[in-house]
Formats: sequence, structure tokens, C-alpha cells
Amino acid sequence: MMMRLLLVALLASVALNSAQAEDGYRLWLRYDQVDGRDVRSGYRSALRAVVFQTTAGEDTPVIASARAELTRGLGGLIDRDPTVHIVAGELRPELGADGYALKAVTVDGERAVRITGNSDAGVLYGTFALLRKMQLGESLDELDETSVPKIARRLMNHWDNLNRFVERGYAGFSLWEWAYLPEVISPRYEDYARALASTGINGTVINNVNANALILTPEYLAKVAALADVFRQWGIRLYLTSRFSAPMEIGGLETADPLDPAVQAWWDAKVAEIYTYVPDFGGFLVKANSEGQPGPHDFGRDHADGANMLAAPLAAEGRDGIVMWRAFVYAFEDDTDRVKQAYNQFVPLDGKFLDNVIVQIKNGPLDFMPREAFSPLFGAMPHTRLMAELQITQEYLGGSVQLAYLGPMWEEVLTQDTYAQGEGSTIGRVVDGTLKGHPLSAIAGVANTGTDRNWTGHPLAQSNWYAYGRLAWDHELTAHQIAEEWTALTFDAEEDAANEIVEILMGSRETVVNYSMPLGLHHIMERGHHYGPGPWVMGGRSDWTSPYYHQANEIGVGADRGQFGSKAINQYALELRQQWGNLDTVPDNLLLWFHHVPWDYEMKSGRPLWDELALRYQQGVDEVHAMQARWDDLQGKIDDERWDATRQRMALQEKDAREWRDACLLYFQQFSQRPLPEGVEPAEYDLQHYIDVNRRYYPGHPGEY
Amino acid sequence: MMMRLLLVALLASVALNSAQAEDGYRLWLRYDQVDGRDVRSGYRSALRAVVFQTTAGEDTPVIASARAELTRGLGGLIDRDPTVHIVAGELRPELGADGYALKAVTVDGERAVRITGNSDAGVLYGTFALLRKMQLGESLDELDETSVPKIARRLMNHWDNLNRFVERGYAGFSLWEWAYLPEVISPRYEDYARALASTGINGTVINNVNANALILTPEYLAKVAALADVFRQWGIRLYLTSRFSAPMEIGGLETADPLDPAVQAWWDAKVAEIYTYVPDFGGFLVKANSEGQPGPHDFGRDHADGANMLAAPLAAEGRDGIVMWRAFVYAFEDDTDRVKQAYNQFVPLDGKFLDNVIVQIKNGPLDFMPREAFSPLFGAMPHTRLMAELQITQEYLGGSVQLAYLGPMWEEVLTQDTYAQGEGSTIGRVVDGTLKGHPLSAIAGVANTGTDRNWTGHPLAQSNWYAYGRLAWDHELTAHQIAEEWTALTFDAEEDAANEIVEILMGSRETVVNYSMPLGLHHIMERGHHYGPGPWVMGGRSDWTSPYYHQANEIGVGADRGQFGSKAINQYALELRQQWGNLDTVPDNLLLWFHHVPWDYEMKSGRPLWDELALRYQQGVDEVHAMQARWDDLQGKIDDERWDATRQRMALQEKDAREWRDACLLYFQQFSQRPLPEGVEPAEYDLQHYIDVNRRYYPGHPGEY
Repeated sequence: MMMRLLLVALLASVALNSAQAEDGYRLWLRYDQVDGRDVRSGYRSALRAVVFQTTAGEDTPVIASARAELTRGLGGLIDRDPTVHIVAGELRPELGADGYALKAVTVDGERAVRITGNSDAGVLYGTFALLRKMQLGESLDELDETSVPKIARRLMNHWDNLNRFVERGYAGFSLWEWAYLPEVISPRYEDYARALASTGINGTVINNVNANALILTPEYLAKVAALADVFRQWGIRLYLTSRFSAPMEIGGLETADPLDPAVQAWWDAKVAEIYTYVPDFGGFLVKANSEGQPGPHDFGRDHADGANMLAAPLAAEGRDGIVMWRAFVYAFEDDTDRVKQAYNQFVPLDGKFLDNVIVQIKNGPLDFMPREAFSPLFGAMPHTRLMAELQITQEYLGGSVQLAYLGPMWEEVLTQDTYAQGEGSTIGRVVDGTLKGHPLSAIAGVANTGTDRNWTGHPLAQSNWYAYGRLAWDHELTAHQIAEEWTALTFDAEEDAANEIVEILMGSRETVVNYSMPLGLHHIMERGHHYGPGPWVMGGRSDWTSPYYHQANEIGVGADRGQFGSKAINQYALELRQQWGNLDTVPDNLLLWFHHVPWDYEMKSGRPLWDELALRYQQGVDEVHAMQARWDDLQGKIDDERWDATRQRMALQEKDAREWRDACLLYFQQFSQRPLPEGVEPAEYDLQHYIDVNRRYYPGHPGEY
Repeated sequence: MMMRLLLVALLASVALNSAQAEDGYRLWLRYDQVDGRDVRSGYRSALRAVVFQTTAGEDTPVIASARAELTRGLGGLIDRDPTVHIVAGELRPELGADGYALKAVTVDGERAVRITGNSDAGVLYGTFALLRKMQLGESLDELDETSVPKIARRLMNHWDNLNRFVERGYAGFSLWEWAYLPEVISPRYEDYARALASTGINGTVINNVNANALILTPEYLAKVAALADVFRQWGIRLYLTSRFSAPMEIGGLETADPLDPAVQAWWDAKVAEIYTYVPDFGGFLVKANSEGQPGPHDFGRDHADGANMLAAPLAAEGRDGIVMWRAFVYAFEDDTDRVKQAYNQFVPLDGKFLDNVIVQIKNGPLDFMPREAFSPLFGAMPHTRLMAELQITQEYLGGSVQLAYLGPMWEEVLTQDTYAQGEGSTIGRVVDGTLKGHPLSAIAGVANTGTDRNWTGHPLAQSNWYAYGRLAWDHELTAHQIAEEWTALTFDAEEDAANEIVEILMGSRETVVNYSMPLGLHHIMERGHHYGPGPWVMGGRSDWTSPYYHQANEIGVGADRGQFGSKAINQYALELRQQWGNLDTVPDNLLLWFHHVPWDYEMKSGRPLWDELALRYQQGVDEVHAMQARWDDLQGKIDDERWDATRQRMALQEKDAREWRDACLLYFQQFSQRPLPEGVEPAEYDLQHYIDVNRRYYPGHPGEY
């Protein structure tokens, strides 16, 4: 009786605690008890021991992390802490630097799992893979599999300022508590590193590309080193952005000319100094001569001059640091179509970059729009290492309010064929280096993390962090597969409910496209905070206005980038030029990206463009309503805490979607002079009402912090 | 066997969860199981039922909160959820509006506790008091006690900006997620309100005194209303700061002259509008004509004109809103000693303020220094309602890095005799209204809360939030008593360890005084962020420099505020003038506040002033070392998580303390030209090194966000 009472008390207490714990902090690493007594006992018998096998066979800090994760994970999943054996094995070339093999083996007559990697990191990734399998309820019997990452440097990019403001951050503020480093180490640093390592991320750029030279001073390097010390234990290398004018700002020089010997010497010494603080420093990410950032052009030099100067010391003295030089450059003084400028600046430099320079290219040539044609640079520069920059944070896709699972967008990008070396020259193959045989390959994702308890603000936005990490490891995974995985790891849900969540995720990005920028429309958001509609935005530099991009007039709408327009289409391979340049063959979803189309143009649907456009906006709103209804049905099928947090955000998204539809249709209707087609709800207010909406102090807006 | 295994698994899981939970989020409301089987069963028998008795006897939202807290608390403490009876009772005048009575009673033959209040809020406070008693292990047998708050309006002041930056905030960023309100309600809003209610706080001013008129626009009022809806359920009324120039900034008027009928009409309408959003709106807090804020002086009017204009509509139509008009005013154009200016401006206005205006006075006449003489306004203005503003956030006492339990400071302030109506005219009695018989009494604490997981950054800084709340309820509680209570509620510690924590807390503020501004020194910190030493700070307006306050020269140091100096001492009662004006009777700790003292002046200790000063600085550092050693000894006696977080901060505090000592002594030594006395460690660097320390992006510094 006594026992029974105690048990009841304990159960109540467990319920209370685990209810409290569903605040999303644990991400996809929840490690709650595996469902099903049989499954649990199956796992227990299969895991009497775990063997960590590396070529060195040493117990290092990274191996200690793997063991700690195993203890944490298996403790939660099956309430066991198996013996860990650390052994040395032969080099297995097929596993590369970071790959792993998982195999069911027998040790001292007992069943065990062996996790093999050439490196400690490989074992760490294998450990997370094993735990993931168990979280997903997969069998460990006859386990025998390997996995090797396709891309060598799998990076996070943080646009974090030293005052903890995060540019385009919607999940609170920067995780880095600069004022208190290096003495005070937030426990969150390690949880962040664990989360990265769990998907195979192995590097992080911790500060904003709109850079501050102070990060390179000894005072800050001591703080940086303290972060690197934490990250290193999880196989994560630390990188910094470097402000090109740092030699002048903190070095006392009168120039930052990359060909000036004093400048070169300053950077040589600075790089050497950084390595004294961070011996495994990964390198620099640089935004130069773009949006006000200093760069080599200020001194009459080109991007290669700038990048190579920084790259040289990073490769000296046995170092293996790299420079990631961003191709996100454009100048409003240049009246060339903005989407053409990066190509024009960079292609002539092909072959001029040092081997440890890699050009970092946003997926589209404009700027992380809900949908863009891909950046033509991916199909160019055969003698240059190229990497992709994806944006996990939803700068143009609804911050952390609107739901937009980005897996499908990234799948679209990574499987896109550039035709650079004939059919099959996908961006994925450009980025993983196999297309050109470059050994240095990399990918970057602009983080959506912050101090919010659940890391990403929107509970479901965690899926984007996860998806980025998984794609960085293996860009051939499908968005659907990753959504299934993430959902299963993240929620306790029956199969039907889990499927429903996956379907909601899968459609969500296209929904945002539909109610904000359908049919290839782009850059028609409000200025500054980039949230909500602003097709009317005018004034200031023309390439930051909306009409520059939508070109609406009485005849039609859309940007003519064809042979009689800006000719941007000529930056693509012939196959794409032919497909996209032709009104009959261009897909609807890129129509207005490449063409200025008359309002009465007959679309594939048989409807005139205006009607099609209006119906797409309406469709976006309808899809939000459907999503809300589906989510409402999930009540009680997942935990209340995250269910309700998501429900609240969807209510705000619904308001936003209607605002987009009404504002954009009222605005474009001024030009089309046509009535809304049947099925499209009339706007609630007049156009001026929407123009007057003034979102002040919106998160992530650099002008207001 | 099965049962045993399950039990082991459950215990492991409980341990894991409760280990995770010691991140400080739960504050002093942890409700972990009560220690001791006998104590638990005693509580269980004493609490078969709980009776909530109010005059109305109705089940209201506040009563529902009390019941929810009871369920949460008793579930955790004794794993019980007793029956709750809600009954109506006679008015009990001795309990006032918010007081409560707890009494052991019998209901249907079973033992119960009755919680009586005239109001729902009284029952809520009684509920928290009952739970606190149980957390402290006090007996409920023969329970029969009452408690009534001495002060009517017990307020938090948040210096939060709309972009979520918190001026002088050191615990992350603002809790209010403006961009997502009113649709998205963070669960943290309710936990915040619970924490306030648990100590009896009944109001909160949610925005910065350096005010932004936007908060008064309909867009923001809808957001404000959503917060008020959450707070109201916990008996908390919401207040706003109002920017005096709002009629011009958001109202389209050309003036904000308080005597202009259009301005009055604008505020009348604005107040009426606010009440449509927040029916129990508490009123306005105003910082006017101070540090750049607009105010009535801009229009040739006085503070009473300004305050009364705002107060009139707050008292109209049955409303009971108030205006809290801050006395923190000074102007650098005025060459009067800054500490005299508020008195000079306000005393002539005594009797001119409407009944629902209360003048809000910082404890000292300068600005929340580690120690100041009290503000002489507390002993003046007999015909005016006066309230105290205390600063919970440690603007001048080490942010959330240094440990400074402020209970002793506030006890010092509240028990200070003003002699305004003869001996016993303490500030506590001025503030609670008993000295002058004012029915409107209030107290404000500038919050130290933010988005940090543990609310306050430093784990032990929670004690200041708690202490403020408890003193606001009953200013006669001692700092020691509160420290004991807080420690017992916050940690699982044996008696010895708990006593050790209490002693560490109790000495901590004086330690900060010793290493930063001993012997009555003040305002010698760095400019802007106010962190670390800056006795050399010069340039700009003189009243923001350090020499203005320390007056160091070859002869001596200290501000002469006596009859031959600024005569600030004349603003105090004769008793204090005599004591403080005389070098023989002024206490050491106010010496340099009131006197310019020669370096070789013989102190009570027999040592010359210079030696005494140097030894005080050394003592501060020594005390930090001692504190570190004592804290180290607590390892394993409290949870590791908070122990280690505190240990890390203490390491930073130790560095800070040495910096203060070395920088200040090197600086003052330039004037004293005397050697360091024996026992004082020489500085590690030269003076220039300390001058060159440049803390950029320090939290809470308004210039850098």
C-alpha cells in the first residue's frame, strides 16, 4: 500500500515535470522513454555495450561528449547506461573525415553496437544517429550501415551583433552573452553545440556579416576563445566575420588596401594571434563592398585581391582556415538589373582565388525571397570553389510568426540543374564539390536561433534548423523524409497526427508564397523590417523600392529579364534560357520573375493573369484557414503547450495573410483596373489603410536597435 | 520485482527532470515535495479542505488563480489537491482591502484551513502565504494569523523600451513581446504575474520612464490590454508611463501645455480611451523635465500643473487612477548642487497637487548609489503624498554580475528617521501614509527581471526581487528575516548551508560599497554603462562627471555640503544637520558625502583618511575573496547548476573588485601623494590601463542599443 502510494506520488510528479518540460527547449533531442515494452526490452538486449572505434582509439573530449550524450539519451530512452569500450581500428577510407558506421556486434558474448569513425567527430555523429534511430523506433537487430557527409564544412551563420541584437533574428536575442564572457559560461552554449552536432553541423560563424572590428581585439578574442572551447568538445569549429577595414579601425593603419604590405602584415599577425586563442579556428566569412560594408573596391582592388590577402595567412604554418567571400554584392550606383550584378562582378575573377577561398552564394540572385530563380553563379566560375548560403531565419517568410517549413524550398534549390556541365549539374553537386572535383566544399545556413526558450520562436520553426542540418549532411534527403523524421523526434503523436503535422509542414512554404509573392513576384515587402506587404514602397535608392521589381503599369506586371529586358536570363545555361525565356514554357511560379506580362494574358489555367494572380492570393489565405482547421484538430493529440503556442501564431498569420492579399490586390488593381474574380474576398479596408500600417520596433530590424 | 524496476526507472526520471529544473525559473515558488514523512502527513491531515472566504463569496478569475496555485503548490508539496469551498463572510475591517487571515478550522468534521480576505486579492495573498508556510516547514496546527499590507499600491517599475531593450536591465531583454501581442501570449506573462502576486505586489508599470508616446496609440493599447488581461487574474493592475509631449507626437497638437484646454481635452479623451482597453487601469508614472524628457517647464508651467492635468481624468467618472510624478529632476544649467535641486523644485509646490497625485522619490537625492544619504524630500512636503522608488536592478551595484543583496540597504532607508514630525518619522511611515494620514500610499521598485531563464541573471539576484516584494507588503520585516525566508524557499539546503547563504547575502552590499564607493564616495563610476570605476570621468555636462562629486585635490576628498559648502545639509531636519554636519559625529559611511576631508584627517579608527580609504578598498576585495571561499564550500550542499552559475559570476566580481580598488586608489593617490598603507595590495597596472578599459555594448546601456 505504501509502495502504491509512493508510486502514485512519483507518477504525478513525473507528469508535472514532463508537462513543464514541453517548452521546446529540448528540440529533437527529447529522449523520452521509448514507447512499447517490447521495443524497450529489445533495445536493452541489443545494447549491453557500445563500442566507440576510431583510428586513434583515444578517449578525447569529443569522445567524452559522445559518451555523455549516450548516457543522457539511453538513460531517457531505455533507462540504461551501457558499458562503453573505446578501441582503435583500421582507417576506413570510405568513411572519410566525418562519416560513421553503425554495426550490431557481440562483445564478451553480449550484444552491442559498434560506432566506427575515422575521427572522434565521426563517432559523435554515429552516436547521435544511433540515438535518433531509437527515438524513431527503428530496429537495431542486424544493424549495419554507414553514412558519410557529402559536404566538408557544414556551417551556421549567425547575424549577431555585439550588443546581442540579431539582424533578422525573430527568436529573441543573441545567445552570446559577451559582457560576461569569458568568465561566465551559459549552459546554453553547450546545448547549442549539442544541437548542431546532432545533425552533423561542424562549424559556426558567430557574428554578423555586417561586421564589427572589435571582435578581432584581444578583449573579444578571449571571449571568443571561451565559446570555441565549448564548441570544440562537440566537434564544432568557430569562424568569425572579419571587417575589411579592421586594420584602420582597430589597427591604427591609414589604409586597408589589400595590396599594401603593411595591411598584409597586419592581417598576417592578426590571424596568427587568433590562432593563439582558437587553435582550430575555421576562418573568416566576409561581406565586402555590399550594402555599405567596406571592401577592396574602396582601394581600387577586386574581390580576389581582398579574399586572397585574408586567405594567405589562414593557410600558412599548417593552418587549414578558409575565407568564405560572399557574392551578395550590388551597388545602387550601378543601373544594371540588381540580380545580374554579382555574376558580372565575380565571373571575370574565376580562377583568381586562392585554393582556400570559397565564394558564398545565396540561393537566389536577389535576396532570400519566398521563391527566386537560382543564382546563375552556381552555373558559372568553373575554376572557383562555390558554396551555398541558405537562410534558415525567415526574413521574407514571416519571421517566427508564420509557418514556412523550408525543406521544400531547399530541395528545389539543391536539385536545380544548372546545366553547367550538361544535364545533372545540380546545385547540390556544385556545392558538394563533386561536379568540379574540388576538395573544399561548404554550405552555410543563416540561423533562426535566439534566446527564446524554444530556440526558434515558432515551435515549428525548429524544423527548419533541423532540416538545414540534415541537408548539409546529405543534400539528397527529401524534404518530406526530413519532415517525417523531425516530427517523430519532436512530438509524442500517434501516426495519424504525425502525418497531419508533416502534411501541414510540407505545404506551408507554398502557402506563404501564394499569399505574399505568387507567380514569381518578389521584393514587394515593407522596407526595413521586411514584414508584411509593401508593393508601394518608393523613395530612396531605387533598388530598394518595390516597383523596381514588380514593374506594374496599365499594361501588365513583372520584371522583363529577357532579351528585350535586362537580359538577366543570359546568365543561365541555354537549356534554361530557352525554357524560362519563353512565355509558353516558363513555369507559372517564375513567370513574373522573368517576364512583364499583360493583365489579360491567358495563363495555362485559361484565366487571364489578373484573375490568376488574385486567385493565388485568395488561395494563400484559404490555405491558412485550412491549416488552422487542421491544427485545431490536433488538440489533445500533441502536448498542449506547443499546440497552443502554434495555434496563437497561426491566428496572427491568418491576419497577416489577409493583409498581404488585400494590400497587394488593391495596389495592383490600380494598374489592372479589373474587378476581383469570383471567389476572391474583397478587401476589408481601402488601400491607404494598408499603406499606413507602420510596424515599429519589429524584431530583427537593424534600424531600430 | 516488476514494481521495483519500474520504481527505479521512475526515480531516475524524476532525478533527471528535477535536476534540469534547477535553472532558477521557478524562483521561490518551487513547491518540491516537503521534507520529512511526518511533516507531510501532518500537512495532509491539516489540509483535507481549504475554505476561501470573501465578502462576496464568488468564484472570480482571481479566486480561480488562487485555486490553481493551491493545486499546483499542494500537488508538489504534499501530493494532494484538497476540496476548495468558496464562501461569503462578513466584512472584516481589520483586514483592509488586501489583507488576509489564515485559520485552522473544521469542515464537515475534517480539518481544513480557512483563508479569509475582504477581497479576492486578499484570498490570493493568503493562499501564497499558506504555501510559503508549508515550504518553510511551519506547523499549520492551531494556525490563526492575519497579515495586512502597510502600503496600498505596491508596484514594479519596468524601464522597458518598445524594442525590448531594458534600460539598466542586466537579465536579458524585455519580457513583453510587443510584435506578437495581442495574438500571442507568452506563458511567461502569467508566471511573471504569479511571482509578483506571491509577494503581494499589486501593480506594474510596464514601460520605461524615458517614455515613448507610441504606447498610447490604439495599436499598442490593444497589446497593453492583452497583458493587463493576464495580470488582472493575479490581482495586478497595469500602469503606463506617459510621455508629456504625447499630444504633439501622436495627437497632432502644436503644444503640450498643461493649461491649454485642447491639451487637457486630449488627455481627457486619451485616458477615457485607455480605460476602454484596460478597465482597471492604475494610472501614469511620469518623468518630466529631467534628463531630456519633456515636461511642463517646456511651456512655462510647474510640476503641479503637469501632474494635475493628467490626474484629473484619472479620478473622473468613478476611476481610481493615480499619477506618480517623479521627483528625480535636475538640470545641468542649474549650478546648484545636484542633490539639492529636487527639493528646491518640489517643496514650493507642497499642497498644490491633486489628491490622486503622489510624488515618487528615489531613496537618495542623487541616483541609486551604493550608499547615499536619504532624499530630504521624504522629510518635507507635509501636504503632499510621497512614495519611495527603490532600484532592484543593480545599476550602480554590479549589474547581474556582482552579488549585492539589497535588503540591508532598503532596511537602512525605510527605518531612517526624517524627524519630520519628531523622532520616529521614518521613511517607512512617510511612505505607508501613517505619518501624515494620507490614504493613498505607494512604493515602487525598478525591476531586475528580463528574459534570462532565471529571470534575474545572477541566481542570487532573485533575492532582491523577493525582498522588494516582501518589504512593499511590510516594511518592518528585517532584511535578515527576508534573506532567511528566501534562502529556504529557493534552495534545498541543510540548515548550516542555508545559514551560510544568508550570511553571504547579508554582507554582500557592504562589500560592494567597500570596493567601489566607501566612506560616502559616490558617482565615481564609468559614464554611460555605469559599470566599473571612473573617478577620472570628465567632459560634457559637469553634473555627469566624477570630480563634481568627489572633489579630490591635494588637500583632501569629498563633497562639502555643509554650511560653507553647498548647504545641502540644510534640507534635513535639525537633528540630522547637527549629526551629519559635524565631522565628529557624521558616521564614516557618509563622511565624504557631506564633507571635504583632508587626506591626513584622523578617522575614528585613528588612521589618517587616506589610509582608511585605501584599507576600505582592500577590505572590499578581501571580502570578495572570503565570499568566494565560503561559496566554494557550498559545493554539493545546493544544486550544482545554480552553485556553478554563481561561482562563475563571483570570479568575475573578484576581477571587478580588484579593478575598482586599483583604479580608484591610483587615481586618488595622484592627489593624496601618499603611499599605500600596509595590507593594501599594489595595483597590477598603471592608472592609464584602468582609464583605457572600455566596456562596449554593456547590457542596459541605452546609448548602445
